[in-house]
Amino acid sequence: MKKNLARMALGSALLASFSAPAAVAGGLEDALARGALRVCTVEAAPFVLRTPGDKLIGHEVDVAERLASDLGLSLDLRVVPGIAVLDRLNAGDCDLAVSALAIDPPRLLKVWMTNPYAESDIRIVASAKSPFRTDQLNAEDNVVGVVTGTLAADAARSRLPSATFREFPDLLAAQRALDDGAINALAFKEPVPTLTVAAAKPQRYAVGEGPSLARTADGMAVRKGDMNLLNFLNGWISARRRDGFLESTSAYWFTRIDWMERLKPPAALK
Amino acid sequence: MKKNLARMALGSALLASFSAPAAVAGGLEDALARGALRVCTVEAAPFVLRTPGDKLIGHEVDVAERLASDLGLSLDLRVVPGIAVLDRLNAGDCDLAVSALAIDPPRLLKVWMTNPYAESDIRIVASAKSPFRTDQLNAEDNVVGVVTGTLAADAARSRLPSATFREFPDLLAAQRALDDGAINALAFKEPVPTLTVAAAKPQRYAVGEGPSLARTADGMAVRKGDMNLLNFLNGWISARRRDGFLESTSAYWFTRIDWMERLKPPAALK
Amino acid sequence: MKKNLARMALGSALLASFSAPAAVAGGLEDALARGALRVCTVEAAPFVLRTPGDKLIGHEVDVAERLASDLGLSLDLRVVPGIAVLDRLNAGDCDLAVSALAIDPPRLLKVWMTNPYAESDIRIVASAKSPFRTDQLNAEDNVVGVVTGTLAADAARSRLPSATFREFPDLLAAQRALDDGAINALAFKEPVPTLTVAAAKPQRYAVGEGPSLARTADGMAVRKGDMNLLNFLNGWISARRRDGFLESTSAYWFTRIDWMERLKPPAALK
Repeated sequence: MKKNLARMALGSALLASFSAPAAVAGGLEDALARGALRVCTVEAAPFVLRTPGDKLIGHEVDVAERLASDLGLSLDLRVVPGIAVLDRLNAGDCDLAVSALAIDPPRLLKVWMTNPYAESDIRIVASAKSPFRTDQLNAEDNVVGVVTGTLAADAARSRLPSATFREFPDLLAAQRALDDGAINALAFKEPVPTLTVAAAKPQRYAVGEGPSLARTADGMAVRKGDMNLLNFLNGWISARRRDGFLESTSAYWFTRIDWMERLKPPAALK
Repeated sequence: MKKNLARMALGSALLASFSAPAAVAGGLEDALARGALRVCTVEAAPFVLRTPGDKLIGHEVDVAERLASDLGLSLDLRVVPGIAVLDRLNAGDCDLAVSALAIDPPRLLKVWMTNPYAESDIRIVASAKSPFRTDQLNAEDNVVGVVTGTLAADAARSRLPSATFREFPDLLAAQRALDDGAINALAFKEPVPTLTVAAAKPQRYAVGEGPSLARTADGMAVRKGDMNLLNFLNGWISARRRDGFLESTSAYWFTRIDWMERLKPPAALK
Repeated sequence: MKKNLARMALGSALLASFSAPAAVAGGLEDALARGALRVCTVEAAPFVLRTPGDKLIGHEVDVAERLASDLGLSLDLRVVPGIAVLDRLNAGDCDLAVSALAIDPPRLLKVWMTNPYAESDIRIVASAKSPFRTDQLNAEDNVVGVVTGTLAADAARSRLPSATFREFPDLLAAQRALDDGAINALAFKEPVPTLTVAAAKPQRYAVGEGPSLARTADGMAVRKGDMNLLNFLNGWISARRRDGFLESTSAYWFTRIDWMERLKPPAALK
């Protein structure tokens, strides 16, 4: 039964993969012809987030900006729901997706993915006054929030089979449920769990100790068949890894919190 | 003369590469349509071996099982002779080959290979009561067994130019010759040499000390032109390397010997 | 304005990328059919240089020789001007380019590049009696020589925005200008700066201290669309990295200077 469901899902992925390459030209050629690089992305701190002035900032924004700049193009960043990002890419709404996508088999069936450009761990944050081990959450009365379609959702279910799960369409909704007490834990890619702890004053949360739920490698996505763009991106990742850009961008967004200052409302104009 | 022979061999590889993509569709699409992943592999401990109950186990089996499972497919493992594995792949008998294939130029002419998913060294095991250095075998009266078409065969001939060589069609035949005394040394990919020493009681063999004959990186093989499957596999390897699956699977099969228990005949039923 | 210029340049790259794959067949198939591998390269010590006997030696020569040998082919090395190497490749004058090409976005628009097979840093060498820091050269009266179209040229302009720059068509011309005093510094990929210091007796030059101008990863280039050759080369790089060939070749040419003996005129025949 589970296998049949998987096959149906794969079947539609398969049809999409046959029709997609015919529907749109190569993302690189399209972008160069129009003078702008269209990048689909998803709002989730600290990957993509909005300042009070409605400017998009974050790790993925810095990566996409540098990519467009290296191509001599302007950046046309298209924020879409997390669950729709690969479909929007395949429909031709953007040239590529840069949205902290963990490289995983379901995604690899729908699109081509680049070599990794970032690495992360999936951890769990919970309402807790004192340190706890992740495995202590493996009990029915623990309600763990996850975001639909993320690797964190699969990893948490597999590690905590006895816990109760609630799915949310995006990270913001899940974080609100945690703040309201509707769920008492949230599984997501770092640094979200660590930032959740840091942002709450007084101390309300803690990150589960022990091995992480999963270790992920993130890739960019292009449409199947778009080999010119794939080779460009893999070379770009080699170059920007080697020259230190990817490492320093990750360090800024994933290990520090001073970027939170950029989210404060500006002082009122006189 | 040597060059002409090489060119003839390459010529047929060339013809195969032109005709193969037209003969069969993409391995990924075929597998999804039929609900089973067909994987060509080769019997050689501890990569692929049979239990007394005729079940296939081993490093390559675990890798192929996980790959099929991640695709929501059943695994159809097809054991073929080592020398035929790439031809069988190109003839469409399987979707891909997972058989501890060292990435090397002759193979790269016949098929496309993935990024490395395992690493190994080639060493030599010999009938010896005491430790010896590999270079001590470089004398005419040493008869070294190798398996046709392996990188180990080339590496041993290049390192021990004065030794006498005997070729065998597969590892089992070569191991039998070593046990019978028909050859007094065997060159093969680790952990075969080390396991040969460990399996013989009382001590009959030793592994040559000093630098290994060669260091190899293993890749999976797909038919030329099968870019959808190649990108899937390279992404899968990134994901399973990052999450620790490939490392722990290699550690289990290549650095331990407790899996040998699985090869013992089961206790008789009443 | 700058963006329009970029777009024009990209436009012609784009046209080239559409027409190139149709113009010539795959480099691997061509090479196998003719029995020789045609490799475009560029003269620059210690990558490609001529002995007094007019033999080509150097890091790129050793890499290309091994590549041809692994294919069972002879090597047809074609020395071309640095600025023309990708155009010559796209015109079909060679099967691939092996010329210490840093993987960077402008090149990735014109060709497909392999995974890195070598790494280097870009540094600056200047007429100096005593040690100096690279940033001390950031003044208008410092005339820095660069070679047109190299990553070193971009990196030096970006790091030393106040310096005066002079462009040269190739490394030899730039080195002559440094020796003549027409420029007082030269930015290039290592080990050229370090070798320039070592070759001058008495001491005339020093390499700028502090962080390098840029860290580069070098790839080979193939024509867009030439997936068979690209997969072959990426596999070859995996194999030759793993077996130590690439590392020992880099160590010989980039960290030692005894190869300079090979450039001395031979003793006269009687």
